[in-house]
Amino acid sequence: MIKVVIIGAGNVAGHLYQSFKKTEQINVIQVFNRNIDKIDFTDRSTRKSSNFDEIEDAALYILAVKDEAIPEVANNLTSKNGLVVHTSGSVTLDSLSKFENHGVFYPLQSFSKNKPVDFSGIPICIEANSEKNLGLLKEVASFLSKKVFEVNSDQRKALHLSAVFVNNFSNHLFTIAADYCREHDLPFEILQPLIRETVSKIDSLPPFSAQTGPALRNDQKTIDEHLSMLDGDRKKIYELITHSIQNLHGKKL
Amino acid sequence: MIKVVIIGAGNVAGHLYQSFKKTEQINVIQVFNRNIDKIDFTDRSTRKSSNFDEIEDAALYILAVKDEAIPEVANNLTSKNGLVVHTSGSVTLDSLSKFENHGVFYPLQSFSKNKPVDFSGIPICIEANSEKNLGLLKEVASFLSKKVFEVNSDQRKALHLSAVFVNNFSNHLFTIAADYCREHDLPFEILQPLIRETVSKIDSLPPFSAQTGPALRNDQKTIDEHLSMLDGDRKKIYELITHSIQNLHGKKL
Repeated sequence: MIKVVIIGAGNVAGHLYQSFKKTEQINVIQVFNRNIDKIDFTDRSTRKSSNFDEIEDAALYILAVKDEAIPEVANNLTSKNGLVVHTSGSVTLDSLSKFENHGVFYPLQSFSKNKPVDFSGIPICIEANSEKNLGLLKEVASFLSKKVFEVNSDQRKALHLSAVFVNNFSNHLFTIAADYCREHDLPFEILQPLIRETVSKIDSLPPFSAQTGPALRNDQKTIDEHLSMLDGDRKKIYELITHSIQNLHGKKL
Repeated sequence: MIKVVIIGAGNVAGHLYQSFKKTEQINVIQVFNRNIDKIDFTDRSTRKSSNFDEIEDAALYILAVKDEAIPEVANNLTSKNGLVVHTSGSVTLDSLSKFENHGVFYPLQSFSKNKPVDFSGIPICIEANSEKNLGLLKEVASFLSKKVFEVNSDQRKALHLSAVFVNNFSNHLFTIAADYCREHDLPFEILQPLIRETVSKIDSLPPFSAQTGPALRNDQKTIDEHLSMLDGDRKKIYELITHSIQNLHGKKL
């Protein structure tokens, strides 16, 4: 069994722990967190610690902490023979270069505390400072997921940025629509089937080809009517995305 | 059986026809379209016509045509005793007021030509000029869908506008991300599980509460780095939506 130490007690740490426990090949021997009380997801077979000096020998140390905490944890972690990786989408591989063996183990997903996670469909993006270390990460990742991608630091940044568009920004559009519906005494559930279909469509069609709507049709009458119904940020967003759709699809206003 | 005539040969007309055929209570006796060759979805039990004078007597006439064609079709349709409805999200009920019995039958979904549709989960928004007509629409709609909503013309416009945000605009964000990934030699499929999770989350959580990301966290370092990686419309969209998230969640830049 591959011995793993997880550092951190947030959503990523918790979900990784639960998922590793289900494999036969990984043994999470220890979970470390500055505040030991926050480690609320381990069972008795796993030791907990809040003292950097107590961190045990393992083949793999996973720093599942916030981006801004990575340098501090790296500073406090005394030199390890095992492979030390972080789980961030936007922090470079080099940030862990003080360790002889270092890498990145980035699961591309938005984790919520109380929602169980099935890692098997979650892309895991790996990067390491040597072929040997990359091999170990590939092995560990493949115990969790069928979708393991070798991704360099630039690509990982591009992915993280793309994730902001598809996850954070889409969700904000959903929020605007939910608010707008509520203001008109309409339940948000009335929009949910359409949202599901929007996403289901791009399983079989590239999003460029799936585009529909007044902007694409150059339907200025509807666009003008919609703009007259909006103000503030909502109006600016409607104008800008309409403009962007028309630019991209070659139909200038 | 309730006799229905469908006017139009587009996606909505075709999908409505297929779904009505599966019910035992609705008989689509005729499909009308100016260009008869475009009616490619009917079976032998349904007559086809391209001549307004040939339109048969029915309890319900469904104008499943483009918004801009509704006035013309209404002009050409000689006065009918049956209920005449359109299927548009943005055209008022009044546009059919020349008919004694008129209404709206608006399925809130994005239909694609070759993708089969399960109407049972699709919200159908109905409106009519009398309780009796509303009753007929409610009956017909309930044969297709479990989600029938009485929605007035203003609410329907609000829904249509909301649909542009959740469907057209989200899809454009997906397109931007897909393009950006391709430019960095990353397959779009790597983002699909995240997109699915974004949508699955709002089944259990209002989108306002599901919001995450650098904008919400006020993580200016990541925001600045992302902006430095973008230009043109993409950069403007990143700036505006980030700003809008911060405005809405009360964390001004």
